[in-house]
Amino acid sequence: MFDLQSYLEYNQNKINNILDVCLDNSLNQNRIVQAMKYSLMAGGKRLRPILCIASAEAIGPVPNAVLTAACALEMIHTYSLIHDDLPSMDNDDLRRGKPTCHNKFDEATAILAGDALLTLAFQLLSSISETNTISADKYLEVIYSVSRAAGYNGMIEGQMRDIASEGLSMSLEELESMHRLKTGCLIEASVITGALLSGGNVTQIDHLKTYANNIGLAFQITDDLLDILGDSVIIGKKTGADQLRKKNTYPSLLGIEESKKLSEIFIQNALQALNIFDKKSDPLRYIAEYIMNREK
Amino acid sequence: MFDLQSYLEYNQNKINNILDVCLDNSLNQNRIVQAMKYSLMAGGKRLRPILCIASAEAIGPVPNAVLTAACALEMIHTYSLIHDDLPSMDNDDLRRGKPTCHNKFDEATAILAGDALLTLAFQLLSSISETNTISADKYLEVIYSVSRAAGYNGMIEGQMRDIASEGLSMSLEELESMHRLKTGCLIEASVITGALLSGGNVTQIDHLKTYANNIGLAFQITDDLLDILGDSVIIGKKTGADQLRKKNTYPSLLGIEESKKLSEIFIQNALQALNIFDKKSDPLRYIAEYIMNREK
Repeated sequence: MFDLQSYLEYNQNKINNILDVCLDNSLNQNRIVQAMKYSLMAGGKRLRPILCIASAEAIGPVPNAVLTAACALEMIHTYSLIHDDLPSMDNDDLRRGKPTCHNKFDEATAILAGDALLTLAFQLLSSISETNTISADKYLEVIYSVSRAAGYNGMIEGQMRDIASEGLSMSLEELESMHRLKTGCLIEASVITGALLSGGNVTQIDHLKTYANNIGLAFQITDDLLDILGDSVIIGKKTGADQLRKKNTYPSLLGIEESKKLSEIFIQNALQALNIFDKKSDPLRYIAEYIMNREK
Repeated sequence: MFDLQSYLEYNQNKINNILDVCLDNSLNQNRIVQAMKYSLMAGGKRLRPILCIASAEAIGPVPNAVLTAACALEMIHTYSLIHDDLPSMDNDDLRRGKPTCHNKFDEATAILAGDALLTLAFQLLSSISETNTISADKYLEVIYSVSRAAGYNGMIEGQMRDIASEGLSMSLEELESMHRLKTGCLIEASVITGALLSGGNVTQIDHLKTYANNIGLAFQITDDLLDILGDSVIIGKKTGADQLRKKNTYPSLLGIEESKKLSEIFIQNALQALNIFDKKSDPLRYIAEYIMNREK
């Protein structure tokens, strides 16, 4: 019987170990590295790296390169959180139950720590030496896909729209489009990365993209619901913040019950996209359900 | 007779055209792209891309990939300027004679425009399709070298030290080390990029690195001197700012005359490193002298 909790913990540990080594082995242990470590090791769910690994597993044996690339994805995610939390953006004090990077250090350090994590991600992606089994072209393809997803046509445009929309009302379409950009693109890049490095073909990658897009939206709905219904102690940040800021959310547009239903539809779509894969994709299936039912 | 002014203008135009196309061809013409364009097209000297091109020329015929990579280097440079100018860092109002990005737009947009330019640089570097003449390995090597130079062991650590040192006194050694990181690393990566993509060997690259390190420091001394002796109209930003902020500069540590002498020594070292190259490296020679004598 597959136990998701053990699977998640096992992979979280693996990822944490690599992330630890990345920065602990550095000769530079100055303030910038302390800030990078602080945010990187603040106990995230490691969803993007785990999706990267699980997507690779769905296809076949997982080369070590997948783990390294998975860590690069987590660095990009962490950088985006550090910058989103800044006073000029969301102005958040807490993240994952701890003071945000600019609170713990200072604003300049937080901006630079974010910059440094983003840059380190590309350093990692370009330094994977497993070129005996994976061609350099593949790595370039991964770098292209990740940079595109994280850039001004992806995650960054999503954040711009998120900031611009505060206090204004959005249609459901605009909300979905914003989330697709802000979180969906990097989640999609995570499954693409795993699939590319484990030798996935175009059809497999297309199906994984559909999976990713659907769990990405379901993930956001759960986020919105947790901000209303969740336990701030479990989540690690204040709840009710969305309403306070008059943020556009699924529950604010659709109500709680309709939002839950929509989330279920997205998860069904995600599971359906996995139909072409065999049992090796079971982790992806369980993750999809976890995303809907999670409490933090 | 080699005319540096025409050489610089010719290459600046080439670079500006590619940079223009990069962002004008984007379907996304939203605020983020406007901010990226605003800072990218604000009339910089294009020193890093030109060094990249001139280094490639010193070795042999220049593949188109060099131009694309050169533009990526300018994007990284521009991102670093946008973030350095932010209120929590240098808090500058003017850059290249125009309002800084956060002044023209807003702080959040400036942070994200910087992030987006950094990310787009890696997208560009990973999307160069000239793989018939240059192997994918080479591109990975370029991405590694550029990300390392721009990261927490390079440019970002330099900026951290710059911020931390304001108001404190530094030794000449500490000052040099800070500048090597803050500006030297990316200048070095620029010559490495050009050399790698035009097929330079290890010796050639080593000599170009020495060249780059020396002109980088000379460049900084001239910057410091211009802040005291320069014409703010020509430079495009207020002079006297360093003294006002009690910044550590070469003139503040060594005096004006000794600083000029040191700059000459660096330029001599740079020129000497070019001894192994033939006439094709003349642009690099003229650039070295220009760097010392420039008025902006």
